[in-house]
Amino acid sequence: MDNQAFEALTTASLPQRLGSNSALTDRIGTDASTWKVREVGDGNLNLVFIVEGPDGSVIVKQALPYVRLVGDSWPLPLKRSFFEYNALIRQADRMPGMVPEVLHFDETQALIIMEFLSPHIILRQALIEGQILPGLGPDLGLFVARTLFRGSDLSMDTKKRKADLALFADNAELCDITENLVFSDPYFDAEMNAHTSPQLDGLVKELRADRDLKVAAQAMKHLFAAKAETLLHGDLHTGSVMVIPGETKVIDPEFAFYGPMAFDVGMMLANFWMNYFSQSGHEQNGDRDDMRAFVLTTITEIWNTFAAEFANLWRTERTGILYQASLFEDQGDILGSEQALDGVLHDIWVDALGFAGIEMHRRILGLAHNADFESIEDADLRASCEAKALKLGRHIAVNRGIIHSITEVNNLAERLQQEMAV
Amino acid sequence: MDNQAFEALTTASLPQRLGSNSALTDRIGTDASTWKVREVGDGNLNLVFIVEGPDGSVIVKQALPYVRLVGDSWPLPLKRSFFEYNALIRQADRMPGMVPEVLHFDETQALIIMEFLSPHIILRQALIEGQILPGLGPDLGLFVARTLFRGSDLSMDTKKRKADLALFADNAELCDITENLVFSDPYFDAEMNAHTSPQLDGLVKELRADRDLKVAAQAMKHLFAAKAETLLHGDLHTGSVMVIPGETKVIDPEFAFYGPMAFDVGMMLANFWMNYFSQSGHEQNGDRDDMRAFVLTTITEIWNTFAAEFANLWRTERTGILYQASLFEDQGDILGSEQALDGVLHDIWVDALGFAGIEMHRRILGLAHNADFESIEDADLRASCEAKALKLGRHIAVNRGIIHSITEVNNLAERLQQEMAV
Repeated sequence: MDNQAFEALTTASLPQRLGSNSALTDRIGTDASTWKVREVGDGNLNLVFIVEGPDGSVIVKQALPYVRLVGDSWPLPLKRSFFEYNALIRQADRMPGMVPEVLHFDETQALIIMEFLSPHIILRQALIEGQILPGLGPDLGLFVARTLFRGSDLSMDTKKRKADLALFADNAELCDITENLVFSDPYFDAEMNAHTSPQLDGLVKELRADRDLKVAAQAMKHLFAAKAETLLHGDLHTGSVMVIPGETKVIDPEFAFYGPMAFDVGMMLANFWMNYFSQSGHEQNGDRDDMRAFVLTTITEIWNTFAAEFANLWRTERTGILYQASLFEDQGDILGSEQALDGVLHDIWVDALGFAGIEMHRRILGLAHNADFESIEDADLRASCEAKALKLGRHIAVNRGIIHSITEVNNLAERLQQEMAV
Repeated sequence: MDNQAFEALTTASLPQRLGSNSALTDRIGTDASTWKVREVGDGNLNLVFIVEGPDGSVIVKQALPYVRLVGDSWPLPLKRSFFEYNALIRQADRMPGMVPEVLHFDETQALIIMEFLSPHIILRQALIEGQILPGLGPDLGLFVARTLFRGSDLSMDTKKRKADLALFADNAELCDITENLVFSDPYFDAEMNAHTSPQLDGLVKELRADRDLKVAAQAMKHLFAAKAETLLHGDLHTGSVMVIPGETKVIDPEFAFYGPMAFDVGMMLANFWMNYFSQSGHEQNGDRDDMRAFVLTTITEIWNTFAAEFANLWRTERTGILYQASLFEDQGDILGSEQALDGVLHDIWVDALGFAGIEMHRRILGLAHNADFESIEDADLRASCEAKALKLGRHIAVNRGIIHSITEVNNLAERLQQEMAV
């Protein structure tokens, strides 16, 4: 199959086309005629097949040369599959056990064969359903700390990092999506925007006239575009995480590129805060109090675990060109190293709040909305949940430099939830 | 010549090897036997030939596969010539008339044939000699403003910028020199360091034990390595500028790569502050007062011209993905755009002070010293000049976030010069 031109798979053609691929047959069995193939892509960008054979199951993920949701009027290069593959193998190395195992990659066919995670479900869905998932916060905190630290000049050989930066710089079309849809479109009347209307119209108008907010959003965009600090997942929201109780897996890193550490952290936190506000929309008889508490606790755990593990790696794995031990520890100056760590973590914190605030806006005002809110059928109720997220997003994006702790933000979320006049 | 393996030119072999190169013969004349060839490389990295023919003269610059100054024990890739060539043609486009015209580039031979600037001399030498050069500050301010703005996402098509970023990311070996020699080696007892001794020993010991300074230096290194904001010259000191009264040319961009705007600005300012303090070492009967005033005026002009032209380009050429007019001017919000500009210029200012302070240290404590100080034969006098630069460097690097104006720094330089107890 490697020698033919790209051709999209179908459930019918897949067994014939991949039937002799040993990475696949070793895992699920050699008699392709017995395979059961289902296409389960959630529809945004790619084809996703579950292939079941007598001995097991795998995922076959194939990119299409356009955005699936929109069609060929919105072309999108197949090479995103190359970047997803390259990100997956790096993440597996930096945080073993938290991404699906890659069994085979075919660049021409833009196709990755990987471990089928079962019975895992998408974290976003689990949160909407009200599932409490022990260990989730620590898992995600460790994932971001280790992948972000180990992909940066704090850890890597810088020549290798620069070569990797050059490799991923070619993922420009997917960066372009983020640059436009996340940082700019939500803040003016862009064509692809949508929001719950007319309930949010007043607030939307207010936000789009909010100078400090727009300047903050563009400052974050500047950082996103310019600070090539580490290999990011690039799309680390709750729809890119799969869970069962006690196990967390991160999928879909096709937006991977070298950007600021705070981006992955902030996007992840934002999606939890949005879920927090969406709980009222799924509540029956006040049955989501525990879930709200769980979501806020998870947010705290993500940040605290991230910060603690980042500090741990700083003290034990800081082998890169930055903040070298030769200047600090080797001179007996432990506090110098700790002072530098404080500075780096402070910057990540401030920037993460900025990215989080912007992410909360684009998911409500831009093109790509969240099921957390979208699945609330009552538009008045949905708008009321969304308005709180918009307000929190504005507050943390604009005030990111003077907010000190995750607890402070969670407390504010609780105040907004209680619909006090804020 | 393109098809043979790399071979270093000699004054003897050059006419034969380049005698049929039309880029050269068109400029200086076809009879190579009449050419006069001199090797004038100042000795650090490359071969530099002046080739004179009946109709004119050119420069032939050829990289060597090692650091010329040290020999083949310090290998350095030939591809730096490729990056120099690519930087020169981009700079010529972004700031016409301020870099030498490129006539020919041969990648295999790592060789650039370019305009011979005559009777220009190296700016550093002119400043040491006490030459007052009208227009110097504005020229350099415009150069940095235009090259830095036009090479960034404020102006370029971002896909092109990302491809260019990937291209220059391969200039890793020259970045490595900066990363080590500028940001780290000066702050511990690294092997290649040297300083005027024993006169500076006490101050050097103090600086190497200065926690805030070392953390600042590493924070600047972090920025240098991670903020891929624009195509930098990368080595923009007064030795990379050639002058005659009324004309300024910038040469030698072989360190070019995508980094933070503030780096070129800060390195340039630092070299003027160092020259300012070095004037006492070249003074006879107080004859350098005018020169000191000229140097400080030039510093003020560089920054003010940079800031003014950057603002001008912001208002007239902001066609990139950052701070789009659709969010500000197109909404009638001029002040929003100005607020964002203030933020960007503020960050460049703060970071430029950081880079300037570090540059002043590495030129006195590290491997590569400045002729401004080195040509002062009296070691006590030299150390006294250098000590003031070291003190100013420490002050502005550590306090960069709370220093407001170029005048403030110049005033401090004057106080140090007057040897008040600071």
